[in-house]
Amino acid sequence: MVVEILAVGTELLLGNIANTNAQYLSRRCAALGFSVYRHTVVGDNEERMTEAILTALGRSDIVILTGGLGPTEDDMTKEVCAKVMGFSLEEDARTRKRISGYFRSIKRKNITGNNWKQAVIPVGAKVLDNDNGTAPGLILEKNGKTAILLPGPPGELIPLFSQKAEPYLRTLQPDTIYSKMVKVCGIGESRAETMILDLIDAQTNPTIATYAKTGEVHLRVTARAADEAEGKRLVKPVVKELKKRFGICVYSTKEDEALEQVVLKLLKKRALTVATAESMTGGLVAGRLVNVAGASEFFREGFVTYTDKAKRKALGVKKSTLEKYGAVSEETAREMAKGGALSAGTDACVAVTGFAGPEDTPEEPKGLTYISCYLRGEVAVEEFHFTGNRGKIREQAVVQALDLLRRRILEQDRHE
Amino acid sequence: MVVEILAVGTELLLGNIANTNAQYLSRRCAALGFSVYRHTVVGDNEERMTEAILTALGRSDIVILTGGLGPTEDDMTKEVCAKVMGFSLEEDARTRKRISGYFRSIKRKNITGNNWKQAVIPVGAKVLDNDNGTAPGLILEKNGKTAILLPGPPGELIPLFSQKAEPYLRTLQPDTIYSKMVKVCGIGESRAETMILDLIDAQTNPTIATYAKTGEVHLRVTARAADEAEGKRLVKPVVKELKKRFGICVYSTKEDEALEQVVLKLLKKRALTVATAESMTGGLVAGRLVNVAGASEFFREGFVTYTDKAKRKALGVKKSTLEKYGAVSEETAREMAKGGALSAGTDACVAVTGFAGPEDTPEEPKGLTYISCYLRGEVAVEEFHFTGNRGKIREQAVVQALDLLRRRILEQDRHE
Repeated sequence: MVVEILAVGTELLLGNIANTNAQYLSRRCAALGFSVYRHTVVGDNEERMTEAILTALGRSDIVILTGGLGPTEDDMTKEVCAKVMGFSLEEDARTRKRISGYFRSIKRKNITGNNWKQAVIPVGAKVLDNDNGTAPGLILEKNGKTAILLPGPPGELIPLFSQKAEPYLRTLQPDTIYSKMVKVCGIGESRAETMILDLIDAQTNPTIATYAKTGEVHLRVTARAADEAEGKRLVKPVVKELKKRFGICVYSTKEDEALEQVVLKLLKKRALTVATAESMTGGLVAGRLVNVAGASEFFREGFVTYTDKAKRKALGVKKSTLEKYGAVSEETAREMAKGGALSAGTDACVAVTGFAGPEDTPEEPKGLTYISCYLRGEVAVEEFHFTGNRGKIREQAVVQALDLLRRRILEQDRHE
Repeated sequence: MVVEILAVGTELLLGNIANTNAQYLSRRCAALGFSVYRHTVVGDNEERMTEAILTALGRSDIVILTGGLGPTEDDMTKEVCAKVMGFSLEEDARTRKRISGYFRSIKRKNITGNNWKQAVIPVGAKVLDNDNGTAPGLILEKNGKTAILLPGPPGELIPLFSQKAEPYLRTLQPDTIYSKMVKVCGIGESRAETMILDLIDAQTNPTIATYAKTGEVHLRVTARAADEAEGKRLVKPVVKELKKRFGICVYSTKEDEALEQVVLKLLKKRALTVATAESMTGGLVAGRLVNVAGASEFFREGFVTYTDKAKRKALGVKKSTLEKYGAVSEETAREMAKGGALSAGTDACVAVTGFAGPEDTPEEPKGLTYISCYLRGEVAVEEFHFTGNRGKIREQAVVQALDLLRRRILEQDRHE
């Protein structure tokens, strides 16, 4: 079946934002076994929107529309789509109730009249309740064509799609598409591809697709099969081979499992507590760990020691170390990790110190970073040379810091 | 004049990458005063590409095509576009010379036959020499329509466009477009729009567009004018009125200025030092501050005190306070901010404590957050009820924490 993605939003046409929703939806649709042949973006303009919806419905089985479901005057995706497909509009009591509940939950008093516009829905449409905002998702079916309307903000679109639109789409897809993700850390995309070139060249069913993420590569193994059991049978040996080739660099084979979740799981299993000591990453490693629900059981304390003074005071880094080797050095990283664990009274502590730029000076080679991990008496330090801008360098450092902690835990297991 | 952007690439339709080229080109075209009404993405498929090019040329004056100019078989943008517009193809000696020169410069030896495919150009097309790759940019003009072909890699597309395509486009566009951004924090989008509905309804030139961001609303005021001076004259009173209506909630009118940059500027101007004390946001407030180059001058230390023990040890929060009011309370937030400033020896400290979920229990109302700011002896605390998932709640808390610090600094100024 052919899916087409139609994004509505002047902010896209003005270049204020990139169409990351189309990227997300395309990736998900590919995983579900749908063919996506076109992306289109139009503005909040009735004439062009009408033309775009008509054309899309004419050539594709399913059109996913994003954006233009807000409470404001120029949000008209729902209205235009209903008109084009011949649906009348009516206020949905249940949706109005959900919206007022949502406003209560955010203790919002001043509810403006235009907010209730979002409770009006095409009669006969499936309503997808939005748990992260007011605009509901909608599914409109007519003459064998389907339009799925989703709100533009990714924080609303992604959960709505994955939890409510995807189960619906699965019912429309006859073959089963079974796919498994292999998530690799610490290897670049091109190197990863070279390591499995023979597999990629030989692939028919299942196929292997690689996606580069900051500091990570995700490999999706996808099989088209009569049923899930056959899909699993096809995918299993390929996943096994990938795990063999990438070894300890594979941190997960679960679709929605992030690196920080894996780290927390490892800590939990061994009842290890952890702290963080960050300079260059300024709290982002701690922030990633705290992303995980229940992190508080194992993550005890984080130190953001941006200045030398703070490194000495909070982490007990020696003045002589800072003077002799500098703040960005293997020795300082080592003392930061050890001192952080000692001060927080934890089994482990991961520390990061480096130069994020923006300037690249002879004495400060931008991107040079030392990441260290203290774990039950042992300290490991690794040197990195990250490239890119300030933000990109710090993102990479966060990933490598979490991964070093992960690898250290696994390595200590082995030696026990 | 109407510009349309047509991106060619299966990697876009598979969701491997986002269409950031379209964002870049749209932003530039808007600044040049062109109207961009549509983005389209198609794959490396002759039939769909032909249809897309024909349609685009039919309804727009200028079509900018990106991607599909590579040396491989499936790269066919140039061939299809030439066919559709009726141009014959011929090898261009000058381009072939440039390509071999490029290969020499990157010390590439193994030049395969298909590389010379990139030296073949539509007869009569303007060639835009690519200094960062082999594929040349091309401008094809026929019957009052223009097609501009640019290579897909942003590292090639951006310099080619800005240095070579833009000067050409300027010759086609008489008016200038002048726009100014007004960035507002702490007001929702629909409330913000209600506050300026009269202005939006009355708008012709300049126009006001609102964009919702997490915890923020951005308002863009755009005027079309004969020259920049006139554009400024038209935009100025509107920006002034917006600043009057949103008052202290306006944190910036600079295009690329983020909230954390404004906060750092305020600290710098008053030579104030700052620390952070975070529970729920687990280091993300510190992380945002450290985003700003030179943050180390003012941001001294961050405490991520996820446990009660850490709150007591690092920030000196009283045991009795935690027992009597709980970790998520106005009193605890107050002591966190005060203790953080004391311990780090800074003029200011912003503290965050709250429930990010995932669960919503009677004793832990998910989203309830206390944000406090200590500034030179005074502590202010604000209560928030954020909604959405764990991540979204924490993002909002980070924005509000930075904004509370910003507002406190400005408020103290007033009282001096």
